[in-house]
Amino acid sequence: MSRTTTVAKYLFTRLHQRGIRSVYGVPGDFTLKSLDHLKASGLKWIGNCNELNAGYAADGYSRMRGLSALLTTYGVGELSAINAVAGSYAEDVPVVHIVGTPQWHVQQSGAKVHHTLGDGRSRVFAEVHKEFTVAQANLLDPVKAPEMIDDVIEKCMIHSKPGYIEMPCDMVPKEVSTERLETYVLKDRVEGTIQSEEEQVEVLLKRLYSARQPLLLVDRGDGVQHSIKSKINEFVCMTGIPTLTLPSGAGMIDHTIPNYFGVNAGPVGQIDTLPYVESSDFVIAFGPLNSDTQTLGWKVVPDPAKTVTIGGTFITHGAPAQTIGINAEALMKKLLEKVDRNQINAADTTSLGNFRTITTPPLKPNELDNPIDQTTFYLRLNQYLRPNDVVLLSNGTPILGGRDFVLPSGAQVIASGMWFSIGHMLPAALGAATAQQEADPNSRTILIDGDGNVQVSIQEISTIIRQRLNMTIFIVDNGGYAYERQIHGMNEEYNDLAPWRYLDAANFFGAGMPGNEGYPVDTFRISTWSDLETFLAEERFNDGKGLKLVEVVVGKYDVPEKFKQVFRAAGERL
Amino acid sequence: MSRTTTVAKYLFTRLHQRGIRSVYGVPGDFTLKSLDHLKASGLKWIGNCNELNAGYAADGYSRMRGLSALLTTYGVGELSAINAVAGSYAEDVPVVHIVGTPQWHVQQSGAKVHHTLGDGRSRVFAEVHKEFTVAQANLLDPVKAPEMIDDVIEKCMIHSKPGYIEMPCDMVPKEVSTERLETYVLKDRVEGTIQSEEEQVEVLLKRLYSARQPLLLVDRGDGVQHSIKSKINEFVCMTGIPTLTLPSGAGMIDHTIPNYFGVNAGPVGQIDTLPYVESSDFVIAFGPLNSDTQTLGWKVVPDPAKTVTIGGTFITHGAPAQTIGINAEALMKKLLEKVDRNQINAADTTSLGNFRTITTPPLKPNELDNPIDQTTFYLRLNQYLRPNDVVLLSNGTPILGGRDFVLPSGAQVIASGMWFSIGHMLPAALGAATAQQEADPNSRTILIDGDGNVQVSIQEISTIIRQRLNMTIFIVDNGGYAYERQIHGMNEEYNDLAPWRYLDAANFFGAGMPGNEGYPVDTFRISTWSDLETFLAEERFNDGKGLKLVEVVVGKYDVPEKFKQVFRAAGERL
Repeated sequence: MSRTTTVAKYLFTRLHQRGIRSVYGVPGDFTLKSLDHLKASGLKWIGNCNELNAGYAADGYSRMRGLSALLTTYGVGELSAINAVAGSYAEDVPVVHIVGTPQWHVQQSGAKVHHTLGDGRSRVFAEVHKEFTVAQANLLDPVKAPEMIDDVIEKCMIHSKPGYIEMPCDMVPKEVSTERLETYVLKDRVEGTIQSEEEQVEVLLKRLYSARQPLLLVDRGDGVQHSIKSKINEFVCMTGIPTLTLPSGAGMIDHTIPNYFGVNAGPVGQIDTLPYVESSDFVIAFGPLNSDTQTLGWKVVPDPAKTVTIGGTFITHGAPAQTIGINAEALMKKLLEKVDRNQINAADTTSLGNFRTITTPPLKPNELDNPIDQTTFYLRLNQYLRPNDVVLLSNGTPILGGRDFVLPSGAQVIASGMWFSIGHMLPAALGAATAQQEADPNSRTILIDGDGNVQVSIQEISTIIRQRLNMTIFIVDNGGYAYERQIHGMNEEYNDLAPWRYLDAANFFGAGMPGNEGYPVDTFRISTWSDLETFLAEERFNDGKGLKLVEVVVGKYDVPEKFKQVFRAAGERL
Repeated sequence: MSRTTTVAKYLFTRLHQRGIRSVYGVPGDFTLKSLDHLKASGLKWIGNCNELNAGYAADGYSRMRGLSALLTTYGVGELSAINAVAGSYAEDVPVVHIVGTPQWHVQQSGAKVHHTLGDGRSRVFAEVHKEFTVAQANLLDPVKAPEMIDDVIEKCMIHSKPGYIEMPCDMVPKEVSTERLETYVLKDRVEGTIQSEEEQVEVLLKRLYSARQPLLLVDRGDGVQHSIKSKINEFVCMTGIPTLTLPSGAGMIDHTIPNYFGVNAGPVGQIDTLPYVESSDFVIAFGPLNSDTQTLGWKVVPDPAKTVTIGGTFITHGAPAQTIGINAEALMKKLLEKVDRNQINAADTTSLGNFRTITTPPLKPNELDNPIDQTTFYLRLNQYLRPNDVVLLSNGTPILGGRDFVLPSGAQVIASGMWFSIGHMLPAALGAATAQQEADPNSRTILIDGDGNVQVSIQEISTIIRQRLNMTIFIVDNGGYAYERQIHGMNEEYNDLAPWRYLDAANFFGAGMPGNEGYPVDTFRISTWSDLETFLAEERFNDGKGLKLVEVVVGKYDVPEKFKQVFRAAGERL
């Protein structure tokens, strides 16, 4: 006789099998019953302050773990989170969005249930989610539920996109068989069509061997991060092909590999990579999120005709684009077996320089009390980073400044590449830190945030405290939307922000209060280079324990000279 | 020769003509250029901390003014706000959601522009907004723009629902003729089809005169708040018909009218209105938002067969429903002319009692140090209210407790009736206070919020400070989601909230900092009845000036006895 479990527990057990340990969300009446099944499935509930933040947290967790779950309530909850879900869709982050819904007969009745539009259109939220998720399931039948759940989770993983599961509240406790849990292993990749991969490897190698100046360009999109990251690194090492990353993929490549030459920022980088990119005659691009923002308005994107793009489930050749479905893992395995470094042309990489050696002159004693500026702040902050750190760069100047980081081994970067939603990174850091600490309690998460971003989602600091996470938060405080200011309206009031006492955040959000005792909080304000040196030297700011809140005070108009080109170009496109 | 203006200024001038003085939102690159045209059109920009809060603020402003505007950026911004827009839709609040979008040729190119999904589906956000707005316009042609703008604003006002206007950033400065601004007055009501209204008045009066026990039931939905509120009050006065409100419409009727008998809460109210409602043989319902939450699971909704419902644009008779389009203002005008009180049966209202006289016994000296409880807190707080106050009741226990308020003359209540989105009311209070103070700088806005709600949208306190608004915020602090706790999971951790130092909010959010000097802030904690008495007696808490933050500490499980039925009923529907 087969054993049974509940619909909710089946779903949660599947998530647990795929490595999820924490689920984010906000409780609501239609989700309450399902919350009872989390702990019994080995999952921890992390209640966020609001659903958008929960969605961002789930996004951050998935960027570390390759899958995450978000649990919200019907209508109000799911719509509050939808911008985060859309962002995960845009940036190829698999998040299972589970929504607790009213009983099906109630939905069908068209009754004026709270959290509906009051006009009988009970399905409108599910319809909207179809636009931002790769698979959907409405669990109405316990017999079909296991297969439907599996299908959504598999599609999320295979396509590296969010999925959507509706669980009517009366379905939560319904009995389902555990059979599939025990006998069927979820797929996270397309079935390999071995023939395709072999053919593609031949094509790739042929082009590679005949290329005068090949280039690898690496990002984290299209599911490559969680399927072939290590194989890409092996390939970079093994072949010696000059390699660049996109900003959001800066953590995809081990920075100690000598043929890795940093971020492809073109003329706005410390070293102008554009001449090399333009003269390359063959480019293999892994998961590029080729947004205008990441590519200086597409200026640094290599010629598509010379480019082969590899995603988790496809390979695309040239222009006009020809796309063939493949299993990237199988392709890379075959590629690693077959590739012969001796047949690859070793091009002259002099123009790419060595980004690891770019430093700023040491400060003279009379400069120590000068206000810091963002032109060299990030370069000087680089020494703060340690192996295996996760560094989140928020939208705005941090994402630009962070391009210069030379990452210690095992360190990773989380940065937006397409969606660039303000406020994303603080909750995402909460999610990333949770995933990190589940694996290693001594890990460090470092968030470099801007004041405009922080104001969007500040309350999640309370969740960081409550969850006793290790996190250093730098808040670059320039009293305004610096990115916007530079693009348009330099002196306009609409680009000013309300002043906050940022360093009081931990106190306001409950540090030291009942339940939070013993969780360490340190705060510091960096206004001058001397402050930065003090900060860097103090062990309590480097030990990674608890919350470090660091306000980085910079001038209202202070942005690195080089970035002014970025802003000017962006302004011209408006 | 006709004069010209810009597309943006045309739009903003139209909003100004309709009484809007403030516009809410968050700047984004695609909106920056339009922001330049606000001041010149007589509009103030109120920058919020995030777009959801901006959407709620616009909702609050419109609840006071009958129209409001929200300005967000493409993709990320508009999706962050969509839960608020959907809420305005559900609750019949007209908000013009203006979205700054990329240039049209860029959208059409399918380019991987930031803030898109990266898959070429540039229209998906507009598609989604069709579900939650009554009218849409994409301003692509300056010649057509004026008419399209007018159409959206008119439909918003007529149907009392949100509308959606896309303004590609290159269209902002395009020249349009000012002719319509000067010659065409926007309609805010359907054209009266006088014949219909006259016929309907006959029908209504016939039924009214023959009714044994007529009843008026008043709410604020379907556009009745801003079209016929005063006429409804006249009708109530003139006819003497016993009148009840729904909770979200408690401010629709002057509480001093003797035949007004309070909120129709049925057996969970201080006076059980259900027997009277059930024995009424003819009910005229104005704009009822008949959600389960407002009606004890529809238990207190009068029999539809005996009910005529009047909205801003329609009248609906009985069951099966027969709906006829009308102009409610014209109908009410005619009704007021024709109605003859002498022909209306004066029913015995003894069972409805007099809610004005319900008070609690005065506290004995030995009770003063007892912890306060919500069973009598709201009744005792009633004396805090003054004429013309606006009182916002947040979702949770405040919305239940506030049902008992006896409002001084001119005072209004803002409460959700259908959508009940957590976190709605703090930003809505910001919006309501702005609208109020534009009309009367000495007005008071009072928000009674819960801790779970406050945590969703707390950062808007910084905007309240920055805008120097007058607001008293009560935060009912019981350390959890009290409403959810009562419905399901009484002792479950998922219903607990992180502890915050709520009274430090003003300090954290910048009170006294540069720009905020001289803005008064007072804080107080009420834990005992003695604290409440101290609070009520102190002038500085009553003068309405600046921000008063009041933490109301109640027990984790403290809810009014009567409401336990509400929760039990809600739990059973899950």
